[in-house]
Amino acid sequence: MTAVRLVPDGDGFDLLAGDTLLLRHRSDAPALFVGAGDADVDMYRGNYFLSDRLSARIPLVHASIDRETVTLAASSSTPALLRIVVDDTGFAVERLDPDLNRFWLRCVTEAGERLWGGGEQMSYFDMAGRRFPMWTSEPGVGRDKSTLMTFQSDRDGRSGGDYWNTNYPQPTYVSSRHYALHLDTTAYSCFDFRDPAHHEIECWEIPARVELFAAARFAGLVEQLSTRFGRQPRLPGWAYEGAIVGLKQGADSFSRLETMIAAGAAITGLWCEDWVGLRVTSFGKRLFWDWKANEARYPGLRRRIAELDDRGIRFLGYVNPYLAVDGSLFVEAADAGYLALRLDEDRPYLVDFGEFDCGIVDFTNPEAADWFADRVIGREMLDYGLSGWMADFGEYLPTDVRLHDGTDGMLAHNAWPTIWAEVNARAIESRGRTGDALFFMRAGFTGVGRHCPLLWAGDQCVDFSRHDGIGTVIRAALSSGMLGNAYHHSDLGGYTSLYGNVRTPELLMRWSELSAFSPVMRSHEGNRPDENLQLDGDPVVLAHFARMTRVHAALAPYVKELCEEAAATGLPLQRPLMLDWEDDPACWGVETQFGYGRDLIVAPVIEADAERWSAYLPAGATWVHLWSGGRHEGGRTVEVAAPLGEPPVFWRDGSDHAALFAALAEAAR
Amino acid sequence: MTAVRLVPDGDGFDLLAGDTLLLRHRSDAPALFVGAGDADVDMYRGNYFLSDRLSARIPLVHASIDRETVTLAASSSTPALLRIVVDDTGFAVERLDPDLNRFWLRCVTEAGERLWGGGEQMSYFDMAGRRFPMWTSEPGVGRDKSTLMTFQSDRDGRSGGDYWNTNYPQPTYVSSRHYALHLDTTAYSCFDFRDPAHHEIECWEIPARVELFAAARFAGLVEQLSTRFGRQPRLPGWAYEGAIVGLKQGADSFSRLETMIAAGAAITGLWCEDWVGLRVTSFGKRLFWDWKANEARYPGLRRRIAELDDRGIRFLGYVNPYLAVDGSLFVEAADAGYLALRLDEDRPYLVDFGEFDCGIVDFTNPEAADWFADRVIGREMLDYGLSGWMADFGEYLPTDVRLHDGTDGMLAHNAWPTIWAEVNARAIESRGRTGDALFFMRAGFTGVGRHCPLLWAGDQCVDFSRHDGIGTVIRAALSSGMLGNAYHHSDLGGYTSLYGNVRTPELLMRWSELSAFSPVMRSHEGNRPDENLQLDGDPVVLAHFARMTRVHAALAPYVKELCEEAAATGLPLQRPLMLDWEDDPACWGVETQFGYGRDLIVAPVIEADAERWSAYLPAGATWVHLWSGGRHEGGRTVEVAAPLGEPPVFWRDGSDHAALFAALAEAAR
Repeated sequence: MTAVRLVPDGDGFDLLAGDTLLLRHRSDAPALFVGAGDADVDMYRGNYFLSDRLSARIPLVHASIDRETVTLAASSSTPALLRIVVDDTGFAVERLDPDLNRFWLRCVTEAGERLWGGGEQMSYFDMAGRRFPMWTSEPGVGRDKSTLMTFQSDRDGRSGGDYWNTNYPQPTYVSSRHYALHLDTTAYSCFDFRDPAHHEIECWEIPARVELFAAARFAGLVEQLSTRFGRQPRLPGWAYEGAIVGLKQGADSFSRLETMIAAGAAITGLWCEDWVGLRVTSFGKRLFWDWKANEARYPGLRRRIAELDDRGIRFLGYVNPYLAVDGSLFVEAADAGYLALRLDEDRPYLVDFGEFDCGIVDFTNPEAADWFADRVIGREMLDYGLSGWMADFGEYLPTDVRLHDGTDGMLAHNAWPTIWAEVNARAIESRGRTGDALFFMRAGFTGVGRHCPLLWAGDQCVDFSRHDGIGTVIRAALSSGMLGNAYHHSDLGGYTSLYGNVRTPELLMRWSELSAFSPVMRSHEGNRPDENLQLDGDPVVLAHFARMTRVHAALAPYVKELCEEAAATGLPLQRPLMLDWEDDPACWGVETQFGYGRDLIVAPVIEADAERWSAYLPAGATWVHLWSGGRHEGGRTVEVAAPLGEPPVFWRDGSDHAALFAALAEAAR
Repeated sequence: MTAVRLVPDGDGFDLLAGDTLLLRHRSDAPALFVGAGDADVDMYRGNYFLSDRLSARIPLVHASIDRETVTLAASSSTPALLRIVVDDTGFAVERLDPDLNRFWLRCVTEAGERLWGGGEQMSYFDMAGRRFPMWTSEPGVGRDKSTLMTFQSDRDGRSGGDYWNTNYPQPTYVSSRHYALHLDTTAYSCFDFRDPAHHEIECWEIPARVELFAAARFAGLVEQLSTRFGRQPRLPGWAYEGAIVGLKQGADSFSRLETMIAAGAAITGLWCEDWVGLRVTSFGKRLFWDWKANEARYPGLRRRIAELDDRGIRFLGYVNPYLAVDGSLFVEAADAGYLALRLDEDRPYLVDFGEFDCGIVDFTNPEAADWFADRVIGREMLDYGLSGWMADFGEYLPTDVRLHDGTDGMLAHNAWPTIWAEVNARAIESRGRTGDALFFMRAGFTGVGRHCPLLWAGDQCVDFSRHDGIGTVIRAALSSGMLGNAYHHSDLGGYTSLYGNVRTPELLMRWSELSAFSPVMRSHEGNRPDENLQLDGDPVVLAHFARMTRVHAALAPYVKELCEEAAATGLPLQRPLMLDWEDDPACWGVETQFGYGRDLIVAPVIEADAERWSAYLPAGATWVHLWSGGRHEGGRTVEVAAPLGEPPVFWRDGSDHAALFAALAEAAR
């Protein structure tokens, strides 16, 4: 790691990582500001509308430097307001006036600089030129103010969202100038990359530290970030050796599974999120949020799980950190005092999740966290036979909640996804199932990867739309991967079907192709299963899906190696091309393809009606088209036929896995 | 006038108008802030998107008071940043650091306080609880993010707008606490009335003054404001003695006028905005912006104008401050150096008005203003025989323009409507036609009333929608009237027809009813005449219109008295009920009715399909329903039948004009 250096200069200072200038602070152009504001938070069903009533923003024009310590003030004659202490990995920040609760940092920028990360960003991998608030929330439906879907969602549920909304924000970016910056805070923050003169980072508290990372190569930066934020355990083999089929039709799910197997699908998991029973709302079929097997919906479930297990098929369920008021666990938690309370009275805080209310298990109370890990996940799920689950939500913690440990809701809100991940991981650890049982989350924040073995890309619309369709999954994998999250996947088929927008056969097939080249290939029936085509609802779609599961399964030996690489280096499986091909600058701007390890380039078709597709192939290698065997020199964009069933994939000539890749097309027959 | 008083208190001061506390400044709760920012302006066809790159906001916690002068600083040990000097009418503001360009003022508020004014506000008469930027612009199409119209307009033209968009903003408000505040600036400013703790006023320069007004009665405040901002001349009799019919079908306009007269309409004006010829764009038929009679479209126009004049019918045209690049006046102005220039080169700045470009006459050049007043309006319009015109636009001055007198575009932008009004007034004065020739404007800013005799409410959609339909005209009249603008009217029938939204017979009839009780009853064919029903396109609509013109004409003696009252006191003709009935607190909150003078209460039907309608009648009088003769004691809401043709109108029993009112229903037969 290149050390961070403080260099006094005139009436200010520079801060460098190696030779890269990151901050330039002068009295006439300060880089540091503090202030005071009062947040205004408006929340509706996980959609947050934040604004700041700012009262002061003080440029810290006066800097006194003593070795590695800089003491900053508004002027030479007024009290110091902030102290920073530089060390090898960044600088600690200390406020010297307790009334300060706002912080701004201006960083040096360069023309053409690219900026990656920000957690799991769905719309833009390169964040340059835009502004990214860091606040975990619903991701939005449509996420594009120019689409009717977004308009309708905004109008009816304030839920349309925008390009920056994400379940998993993280105040960390990687610059193409070969450094990364992380803000050590769980407060609301905002990365503003619009100004050509400087980046401006805003934070609604004085952050504890500003962490800086530098490396000669991007892959080195990713490794550092993965080490810092948590290297994930290896993915269990069963998770990538076949598909995980999502079905939620009660006992009929089992017969539908057999239909799929009979059609030739390679399946290693059955995921029934409705294992807890259903609740019908206007949004669609929702689950009954009382985390225990529903024997009425799944008679003899424990036995059936064991039977599947004998056939090498794991059973997965669903859980989230809320408890519906009409469930028995709510009563148990409320009686024990495990629920977060209202500020104004000693009653559980209830959150509206769309036509039903829930209590929030207060994980800042160690007893409550233990109870949820052991009593709920441990006893009701793992002991019952589950090998995995969707660990949903985490984004809804209200800011006006009273928590056991006294944390302010404005600071706890962003921290919650990671705390929630930790509860899940602890449950698995308590049963000795780490590296075997698997949970996946859409919510995240700094450190989520330390606990959560697998991200999922949240709730896409069931379409090809630019900001909420199938293509967002790729950017989500790239951005989260850039911060050291190795494992990513998505709901095969998309999730949100509203306003008559339903799945087409083409969408299901294109998504099957994308998912086959993801570490985990898991299908979802969506929010309105009955109105949407399912994988087993059309023989052509089913046959195509079965083929893609076989491709996926055939890749397992290669994926196993990628998992080992990830464990060693933190490199994500689905990765930006530049991580392996940094010397080819054309790779730096590629947002809709990924390297699947170093030896595969995957350019999924993410538009409707495509017969041919273009892909950029990195310079320095020869690439073999998976389906035709056609060979292409790298360093150029090639166009290939891309009929359904032949997703544009290229393998590197000379790969150790050449034989495996060459046999893939055969596996798909 | 109650004098403003500065009262030192502890480490700060209070500012009072009479006994009303307006500002409370303390070191721990300052009322004054200064700062520095850099405006980001994004404009598309008159729709502006402004944001601020704020670098500093300094609470001026340290106040040194010497008699009426307060010197303010960030601390006792740092240089003073601002000086205010209090006098009887407010306080002068002086920046002591030239780098400061932002100013904030926090004013005392009270629970239940109402706030009126802000120029001509279309959506809300009472501004409490909301935020109102002050920046003249297109008003928006739809103006309500929950409507499809707004969504489509935003998507296709960035033109949907919001509740606060207006052609005529003015940084002035009247408080129900019996004071008014005006910011003496043409910079962008914003009145934020959302915080229950204080009002916050923001200004993107250090304003010259903060002016304060106080009076025991609201009517007294309006009189003061009218005196301050400019008392309008009396409206000429011909403008209110009959309707002004807007037709734009070239020579056919004359025959259509005769049809209307034959149907019994009382008409004193023919308004042909197409007197300059047409240009067809995707928005609809636009005008050819080269300000001279188009003999091809109107053969023998000068003679026909004279013939109409002999029959007591005036002819009106259209002009705006821009010159189309393909017109002859553009060449004339460009050759003389009368056009505003680009910042980066010595070429005229061209503005895109929607598929055609125009130059901007630079009115900061006295020669250019004279040229436009004398050569264009004087010679081409008044000398030609026009008695009036729509003086359109004024809101589009770009902020990155180079002006003759060196004014920054950010400061000239809001000033432009008033400068434009002055050019029109000067033209009329040059021909000795003041008080006889008439022009009307939608754009405005502080002082527009000093020059412009008549406001028009801009471009409503041709519908009953809450934020862009017929009802907005009432709020526009109330808010602009509150600031001393006596004369207001609207496009009878509305203007904007897009996305298949067209006029219904009902809309035309309801708007005829509203316009009959406005000082000027002027119709408009709208942006897409051929796709929309016109007044003469349906015999029922035409008969109804003719009846309403007769009601309008019959009101003329009463309106003449209201004009005299306006000249004497500044009271608007269409006025908030509380101006005459302040002691009835229920009148303070009425937003969809107006007093037409003191003796009429008008509650226009502004919803579709209404058969009955409710109106609040002020306490302290007995009110007679115009159509039924039914008598109602004031101080209550009454519901009356409101079929087409019987707009809910009530006259005050005991009025000097009782006989005239009683005969109105007869006039309508």
